[in-house]
Amino acid sequence: MSGRHLLGITDLGVDGIDEVMRLADTFVEVGRRPIPRVPALRGKTVVSTFFEDSTRTRLSFEAAAKRLSADVMTFTGSSSSLNKGESLRDTVLTIAAMGADAFVVRHGCAGVPAQVAGWLDQAGGASVLNAGDGAHEHPTQALLDCFTVRQVLAERQGRDPGELGTGCFEGLSVLIVGDIRHSRVARSAVLAYNALGARVTLVAPGSLLPPSLEGWPVEVATDLDAAIGRADVVSLLRLQAERGSGSFVPSLREYTAEWGLTNERARLLGPDTIVTHPGPMVRGVEIAADVAELANTVVTRQVTNGVAVRMAVLFLLLGTDPPAAPDEPRKVPAHG
Amino acid sequence: MSGRHLLGITDLGVDGIDEVMRLADTFVEVGRRPIPRVPALRGKTVVSTFFEDSTRTRLSFEAAAKRLSADVMTFTGSSSSLNKGESLRDTVLTIAAMGADAFVVRHGCAGVPAQVAGWLDQAGGASVLNAGDGAHEHPTQALLDCFTVRQVLAERQGRDPGELGTGCFEGLSVLIVGDIRHSRVARSAVLAYNALGARVTLVAPGSLLPPSLEGWPVEVATDLDAAIGRADVVSLLRLQAERGSGSFVPSLREYTAEWGLTNERARLLGPDTIVTHPGPMVRGVEIAADVAELANTVVTRQVTNGVAVRMAVLFLLLGTDPPAAPDEPRKVPAHG
Amino acid sequence: MSGRHLLGITDLGVDGIDEVMRLADTFVEVGRRPIPRVPALRGKTVVSTFFEDSTRTRLSFEAAAKRLSADVMTFTGSSSSLNKGESLRDTVLTIAAMGADAFVVRHGCAGVPAQVAGWLDQAGGASVLNAGDGAHEHPTQALLDCFTVRQVLAERQGRDPGELGTGCFEGLSVLIVGDIRHSRVARSAVLAYNALGARVTLVAPGSLLPPSLEGWPVEVATDLDAAIGRADVVSLLRLQAERGSGSFVPSLREYTAEWGLTNERARLLGPDTIVTHPGPMVRGVEIAADVAELANTVVTRQVTNGVAVRMAVLFLLLGTDPPAAPDEPRKVPAHG
Repeated sequence: MSGRHLLGITDLGVDGIDEVMRLADTFVEVGRRPIPRVPALRGKTVVSTFFEDSTRTRLSFEAAAKRLSADVMTFTGSSSSLNKGESLRDTVLTIAAMGADAFVVRHGCAGVPAQVAGWLDQAGGASVLNAGDGAHEHPTQALLDCFTVRQVLAERQGRDPGELGTGCFEGLSVLIVGDIRHSRVARSAVLAYNALGARVTLVAPGSLLPPSLEGWPVEVATDLDAAIGRADVVSLLRLQAERGSGSFVPSLREYTAEWGLTNERARLLGPDTIVTHPGPMVRGVEIAADVAELANTVVTRQVTNGVAVRMAVLFLLLGTDPPAAPDEPRKVPAHG
Repeated sequence: MSGRHLLGITDLGVDGIDEVMRLADTFVEVGRRPIPRVPALRGKTVVSTFFEDSTRTRLSFEAAAKRLSADVMTFTGSSSSLNKGESLRDTVLTIAAMGADAFVVRHGCAGVPAQVAGWLDQAGGASVLNAGDGAHEHPTQALLDCFTVRQVLAERQGRDPGELGTGCFEGLSVLIVGDIRHSRVARSAVLAYNALGARVTLVAPGSLLPPSLEGWPVEVATDLDAAIGRADVVSLLRLQAERGSGSFVPSLREYTAEWGLTNERARLLGPDTIVTHPGPMVRGVEIAADVAELANTVVTRQVTNGVAVRMAVLFLLLGTDPPAAPDEPRKVPAHG
Repeated sequence: MSGRHLLGITDLGVDGIDEVMRLADTFVEVGRRPIPRVPALRGKTVVSTFFEDSTRTRLSFEAAAKRLSADVMTFTGSSSSLNKGESLRDTVLTIAAMGADAFVVRHGCAGVPAQVAGWLDQAGGASVLNAGDGAHEHPTQALLDCFTVRQVLAERQGRDPGELGTGCFEGLSVLIVGDIRHSRVARSAVLAYNALGARVTLVAPGSLLPPSLEGWPVEVATDLDAAIGRADVVSLLRLQAERGSGSFVPSLREYTAEWGLTNERARLLGPDTIVTHPGPMVRGVEIAADVAELANTVVTRQVTNGVAVRMAVLFLLLGTDPPAAPDEPRKVPAHG
């Protein structure tokens, strides 16, 4: 992994993705220890700066930082000096001046993490991790998706995920379904799967496809029922009502009937097809309640892996110590 | 203490209550150390999931978890993926998948902690601690009430609280006053005091009694002035305006005159009668300002004990190490 | 530093200010270590109680507490038991009873920190640090301003700041510009600079001066252009729109033209004049965007020093251990 920031999947390339996944394998092991914590980032401060609400991504990054023994500061846009007229740049530089080593940034506008990174490059150089910017990218989500797929494939073969490397993605057929227009997850996933050698197909109502797909390394399918049977991975997306997706479809009921992974449609899945969803799932809309419970639906496993993948990214950007040395109990006191 | 959860007082029985109180004695001692912290839950993650506002209970649980060296994650209902259409079950399972070992749950609806516990039992098995659910139970509040009463009785006898065990409750007369209808604290207190052998009397305006008391092991008094003189413990409750208690009484002034512990009424207290209140107190309504300051009014002591009692419960549900080994300063570094 | 609280600059006197600055020198050095953390306040709990929004001050105090290895609890006025009718005194005593050692208090009303200190003096004795009360005082802000000026002067002379002591302030000309009426920062700065022997001049539109300056050890200038050239330090203040400052000036544009540090006016600054601002800056109002970037504008440095100064104050109020012993990694486990 080169560079000081993780703004998007293109910052990584296939070698970078491989490096993240190999390190995440180690952190999955750390997560199973009785004390799932390593001292690798002791003394580092990670600031979570979420200008949009997020439960899972913020908690996942904060859990990752804590397991690496970093300190976490939480900054939310609403309780901030921005309301007093301070510029975003000054806010960021102020927090950096307090000793922040990394900013985990989520923002409703595409490009804000890159802008923050530019400001920080001129001022001491804290790292930026894009935790989702507008409809642009959400790179750690795509990384954890790929990581989870590789992990499942390795388990089926009874092999170590590290042995598979990135070769297991070669020619893999990935179908991304749903609200691609508003989805930063979809953009990052397309880039990541494509870099790893998978073939990506998008399927969505025309109104939920981006205005242009020029340059996207994807095919577009229009018949979900036909496409689903040929997929090795089906990657569902949430219909993002808070971004107005509701007005892009005639009704939720019709959306579900045409584009949801209903019980009927789930019967068309191959026996080994892996179903992913970035969460939060809206059961009954993009996925039927029962389908969410199928053995090949790996949503919970994605969440668990998310912590390991974010530990890997944080460590690659900030770490110097050995990554997985155990965090040992303290010994007999010298004083008081 | 059997089982993995603390949902209500009946999960404990008299032996469980005794076990909590004995362990809390130890943690009271830890709280008086220069460094009031033990490594007992290092590597464990406690999530506070408060769907209703609470200052004192949340801070108390979080202080308890930190003193045991657990990590604390805070999740609030309002900033959550629930707003995006995720089910409560999926939210809980998602947080569990990130590595949570215990959920401290407060919710406006009775039964939610039990429901959460059921979901977690099917998914790896984190523990649930009920921190108050609707008008159902608030078990740690009742435990700290009983613990405080036992501690005061022990001090008066110049004995160790552990020597008294649960015997000191045998035949003790406990009077619970006020808004019993809306009070989870009252429900838990009735069960705890009764299990320990005390005799519980409720006194309240009829409108603030539950619709039925069938099966409750209590007597009901209608004359507070008469009842108060016979009580060893007077347990006041807050009039819960946020649950609409205001509409159950003609006026606050009349409520106070009839059912408040006014200065006049406090003169009827026996010299050794202990007055408890779960807080927050509304002085001038259920308790006169001066009465809150009397030596036998143990509100502040309840708060201090609350941390020790919650440490005991967390330790009993999650702990393996010796509970009270000192948390020692770190020694000379091997590297870095 | 005598006493248990820091309520205002007069609690310190010149010796106290000197003590804080000398200790902060040490903590500046700690802040440059790979692991910028010392165990000095292990086992202590610092509660931040902010009844007014603040990003920078809260994060700065919390970062300072964490670098000293204290535990931090965060209490915000809005999510509190105050809404249920509890008095502020009971809220404070409740948090103290949970084991808080220090309260960092910000409140919209002058005098609240002193009141809180009084309550705590009668109840076990936690410390209070005033983090800004109404238009009264904000002592740590003034301390970090003075500390930063001394640090810059020392660097220019190629000397250690400690060698300069407080002598470098003797006869220094400090010009405070802007919304003095609503500024607690100005009040604390006047007291601190004056105690250290500097000469303080205020310059502001009459409507933004306090109703009376009787007893203030200051001169008042009416011509900013004339005054600015004679100042060694120009201390800008934010126009506090949230306190209604907007209605005290005819328009922002006129305010800026007359009282802002515009590019034109900045040409009148001496080559060594230091420009400070407590932040958040509103660029284009009290300071031109370019002026904020000048080498002698030390806003970012103030922020960095703020953490060290707050560490010093916390340590002086709560500490017993050597202040700057390194926080060492943990050694080989005895068990688990």
